[in-house]
This record gives sequence, structure tokens and C-alpha cells, in this order.
Amino acid sequence: MRDTSSNFRVAREDLARFMQAVLKAAGADQVSASAVTRALITASRMGIDSHGLRLLPHYLQALKGGRINGAPEMQFHQRLAATGFLDADDGLGHLAGYTAMEHAMAMAETVGMGAVAVGNSSHFGAAGCYALAAAERGYLGMAFCNSDPFVLLHEGAKPFHGTNPIAFAAPVAGESPYLLDMATSSVPWNRVQQYGAIGRELPDQVAADAAGQVSRVPGEVAALLPLGGSGFGFKGAGLGGMVEVLSSMLSGMQHGFKLLPMGGPDMSTPRGVGHFFLVMKPDAFVDSGTFAHGMAEYLADLRAQPAAPNAQVMAPGDREWRCQAQRDAEGIPLDSANQIAYAEIAEQYQIAPLSRLV
Amino acid sequence: MRDTSSNFRVAREDLARFMQAVLKAAGADQVSASAVTRALITASRMGIDSHGLRLLPHYLQALKGGRINGAPEMQFHQRLAATGFLDADDGLGHLAGYTAMEHAMAMAETVGMGAVAVGNSSHFGAAGCYALAAAERGYLGMAFCNSDPFVLLHEGAKPFHGTNPIAFAAPVAGESPYLLDMATSSVPWNRVQQYGAIGRELPDQVAADAAGQVSRVPGEVAALLPLGGSGFGFKGAGLGGMVEVLSSMLSGMQHGFKLLPMGGPDMSTPRGVGHFFLVMKPDAFVDSGTFAHGMAEYLADLRAQPAAPNAQVMAPGDREWRCQAQRDAEGIPLDSANQIAYAEIAEQYQIAPLSRLV
Repeated sequence: MRDTSSNFRVAREDLARFMQAVLKAAGADQVSASAVTRALITASRMGIDSHGLRLLPHYLQALKGGRINGAPEMQFHQRLAATGFLDADDGLGHLAGYTAMEHAMAMAETVGMGAVAVGNSSHFGAAGCYALAAAERGYLGMAFCNSDPFVLLHEGAKPFHGTNPIAFAAPVAGESPYLLDMATSSVPWNRVQQYGAIGRELPDQVAADAAGQVSRVPGEVAALLPLGGSGFGFKGAGLGGMVEVLSSMLSGMQHGFKLLPMGGPDMSTPRGVGHFFLVMKPDAFVDSGTFAHGMAEYLADLRAQPAAPNAQVMAPGDREWRCQAQRDAEGIPLDSANQIAYAEIAEQYQIAPLSRLV
Repeated sequence: MRDTSSNFRVAREDLARFMQAVLKAAGADQVSASAVTRALITASRMGIDSHGLRLLPHYLQALKGGRINGAPEMQFHQRLAATGFLDADDGLGHLAGYTAMEHAMAMAETVGMGAVAVGNSSHFGAAGCYALAAAERGYLGMAFCNSDPFVLLHEGAKPFHGTNPIAFAAPVAGESPYLLDMATSSVPWNRVQQYGAIGRELPDQVAADAAGQVSRVPGEVAALLPLGGSGFGFKGAGLGGMVEVLSSMLSGMQHGFKLLPMGGPDMSTPRGVGHFFLVMKPDAFVDSGTFAHGMAEYLADLRAQPAAPNAQVMAPGDREWRCQAQRDAEGIPLDSANQIAYAEIAEQYQIAPLSRLV
């Protein structure tokens, strides 16, 4: 589990300094820059490198192109005591996400539960960041997001759903939270690209060619399979659909199939991404001591289970918290592509470059 | 898709008459008998035969043994405006489920959303029944339940989670609801038994032997794999864990690993099953016309997608509604094992037997 992805490492404080400065230089206001920085560093510390510092150049490009509004006037509309809608004014999805979670937590504190549908938003990084924001304050948190099409329907031949993530986090007394953050495909799209770059065959049942036939050759891949593969992909596709109903229909946004692609080339037209956030207060159901005791007992039993040879059973989040402890101690690694990208950004925006830890 | 499972078919009205009578004869009160009948017939009409009429003998056995209380005094404790706890008094899970959904819908009507954790309950049949009960009244419904251990953790060697189902239903204007009802394993346990009975090999990556190694031989199987198989089972296991947190921890019940087995031999000790139900009102987020329009457009786009050769793309529920239309017209089939079981029950409880449709 030792993290050997790169020997170019930076302190998270320095990474935060860099992100804040460059986001503001690119037109983001203080709250937007802070929200993006918080989300990307949260993901990078936990080792979710696909949704961490790697994404900064993308957001800068979207700010520069005008697709994303760096200084949005987000408006929260309280609809009923447990529900609301946040119009994100085409701002950064990270600010929308943390803002929506604050409203949902306030409602949960009062009526036991709160949910916020978010419309007119943009890519928010890792869904887990927002579920985690609730769990860190003692609530159960859930986050969902639509995305542009990469994933086949079950028995479908063309991409229809996005990777439509589901995140769920629960507080654990005296420990880091339980944290599940998963795409409803088996692998993310960038795994296909990574495997292609190093000439490696994909696992079976995770991707398909342009005709919708399962393929393990990255260069042939035109779509991802839903979680469950050819046999049981109706489950992954059904979960992806659930995410779509929550994120797109409850926010009044276009469903993912109709979203402009995150990757462009159009970097000027707002995409109208939809999110959905839900918060529950454990002691609005049972006494809080009961919940905490149950979680502790469940996790102790889980972690004590026998594992397959050379393996170890873990609770969702365990791997991430270990990575976080290591990266907090040793720094956050940048691979060569990110080293180059961050050096270029420093130059372009006249920001002091990242300091490499020795 | 023609249903040729049996040529012994019964009208659902006759099946309902039979179930009501025998459940009451076995000690269930009127509301309990009605709830079980409603749930089992809902599942059987839709073709979810694993959770339909097949289960009646099991519930009779559990009533007779005293494990289940046929005349419970279920108590609902409203905790906050959007949340509550239902003590099911060891009654039938179906009554607990429909009762909890009524409370959750009432809360959703007032504050936009409502959730009920249920404790001291028992097996409730198909989770989809309760999600559906909300969608039929215009709400989004979700249902979750813990269960005794059949499923490995990711990289685990012994069963830990139950098949821990997730059900999600959404209303569709002028049509039957969107309905996802899935175990967080790939296959249910009775699929292993069915394949064993006919000497058929299981699909890959769905089950494991007593050492936790993947096996396709039904006779060797000691556990199910979580959805996602050896490679991506951390997703299925994480979803199973989410169901556990909602169903067990929010209800203050034992987690599934510690539940007495549904199948006995102990039919006298209450199991303390936990459920969790959540209801959301679409127009508590956006105008109801917006939600309905979005659902219609999403489903039209989904159903228009190209399919793999000899396949057809469907929305969750499409297969079930087709089966229901057919079974409403032609009757609900009983396989030979159920024909025998129902004949024995008729004799034992002195109830007029089912009338076979000609």
C-alpha cells in the first residue's frame, strides 16, 4: 500500500497556496477558489488522483473560456422545511456542493433530514468530498451527480449514462468516517486512457468497442460497461439511472445524455450540470449513542473478518485514510504530466511554482 | 419474454383470497394478512418469483413457531418533522414496510421529505414493493433492508453482509413507475440452489467456495460475491455496507452478520430485522411539471437507444410491467414445488384450494 507513484511531492499547504492564487488569477472569487482548493486537496490527500490536483488545469481552462462563472451569485430557494433548490449560476461545482451541504445540514439539524437539488452547476470533482463534509460534522451525507455519456445501458450499444457517482459517508466516533465514493461504471474513463498509454489489457467486463461488444483493448474502447458487466449490468445501469433521476430530474436540468462534454472543445457554453445532496441526522432516528455504538460494533466485526490469501478486508474509506496519513506526512505526489502542467500554470499566471519536498 | 414457467396459473383475486384466509388462520390479524398478501402478489405479478407467493409457507412457519407476532402493536415514534422510528413489535415486515411508508409520505407531504427507520421487524419480501407504494402516489420512494450473512466482503473469505437490497422508485406521468429493486450481490442465493437442482454452471464472478475462492459449481458454493465480482466487488460491498448503516444502525438493530438465519432452524426467536424507508416529494425541489417532463424525456431517450444484437434496452421496471400485464391477463403461474406447497397448506388450514385457470 506504499504510495510510490512519484518522488516529486509537495506539502498540502503549498499546494493550497498555489491553487488559491491561480484560481483567483483566473477569475474565481475567494469563496470559489477556496471551495475548489478544499475539494481537490481532499481528493489528492486520500489518493483519489483521478479527481484531485489533476483537475486544476481543466477548471482554469473552463474559467478562461467562460463556461464557468468564477464569481457566481448562487441562490438558495428553500422549498419546504427539508428541501431546497440551489441555482449555482454556472459557478464552480465545488462551491455549489459545499454550499448545498451547508443548507442540507441546517435543515437536518432542525427537521432531521435535508436535501438540496442543485442546477446550473459544473463539474464538482469527487462526490465523496461533499458526503464527507457532512460526516465530519456528525451527519450521514450522500452526494450524486450527473455527467456526460460514457457508459452503456445494459445491453445497449452506445454510451448513454455518465459515470454518475454515488457517495455515502457516515460518522464514526473517534475515527475517520465511513466513506463510499463510487462511479456506477466499474472503471473510470481515465483508467482506459492510462492502460492504453502503458499498453496494458483492461480487465474483462468493464469496457466495450464502438459496436457495444466487450473489449479489453484500450485502443478499441468506445464506452464503459455499467457495474456488473454483461451479465449484471442492469444493476449498475439502474443505479446510474437513480443518480440521473436525483441529479437531473429533481434539479430540472437536462439529463446526462444531453450534457455538453466535460472535455470540450466548447469551453464557453455553460453545461448546466445537476447535483443532489442529502443529509440525515443519526439521532433523529435513534439515540446518538445507539448509532455510534452500532457503527463501532459493525466496523469491528467487519475488520475482523478473514480475508482471501494475500488480501485484507477493509471498510470503505480505510484505504483512503491510510493514504491520507501517509501523504500528510510525506507530501502529495505529482506525476510527470502534472509536474509539467503545474510548471506551465505557474509561468502563465505568474505564480510562484510548487516547492518540491526533499 | 413470454412467460412459460408453468401452465398452472391462478387469478390474483383467488390467490389473494387464499393468502388472506390462511394467514388469518395462522394467527395474523387483518392488517398483517392484508399487507403480506399485497406484497407477495405485487412481487408475483411483476415476475419477482423469488419474493412472491413462494414465501407464503415460510411466513406461516414463522408465525406458527412464534418468531413472528401475527397481531403486533406497532408503535411509531415521530422524532423530528422529517424523521421517525417504527417499532414493529416483531410483526410481519410487510405491515411494517407499508406502515412506515405511510408515515414517510405524510412527512414528505408536509416538509418535502420523510424517512422512517424500522426496528424489531422481520423479512418484508421484496424491497421494491415499498418504494413502489410511494411512486404510485407521486413520490420518490426508497427502501433498504438488512439480512443474514450470505455475501463476502471484497477480498473476504467468509459471508459477512446479507444480500442487503436497495429499491428506488420514481413516478412517471401516465405510465407505471421507474422501479429498481436490486440485491447488492450479483445473484440471489436461491439462484445458486436453482442452478444446482438442474446441474447448471453459475456465471463467473458471482459466488465462492468455503475458502472464498470464486466457484461456478453450485454444489461447492458457500457464499455470494458482492456486485462487481473479484475485481470491483468493493463497490457491491460498499453499497451493502450503506444498506447496513441505514437499516441496522439507524434502527438500533444488530447488524446483519449477527442476525439469526431467515431459514431457521430456530423459528421461535424474533430476529430483530431492520429496514429503512425514505420518501421525497418531487415538487418540493422543482415544479412538478418540470420533474414529470424530465422523466418523460429521459425515459424516451433511454428507450430509443440502440441495443446490442438480439437485445433490447429497457428502463428499470419495464420488464416487470410487461410481466404484470401478461400475468394479469393470463394468471400467476405456480411451479410444481409451489403447487404442492399450496395444496398442503389448503389441507392443513382447511382453506378452499386455489382454482387453476383453464
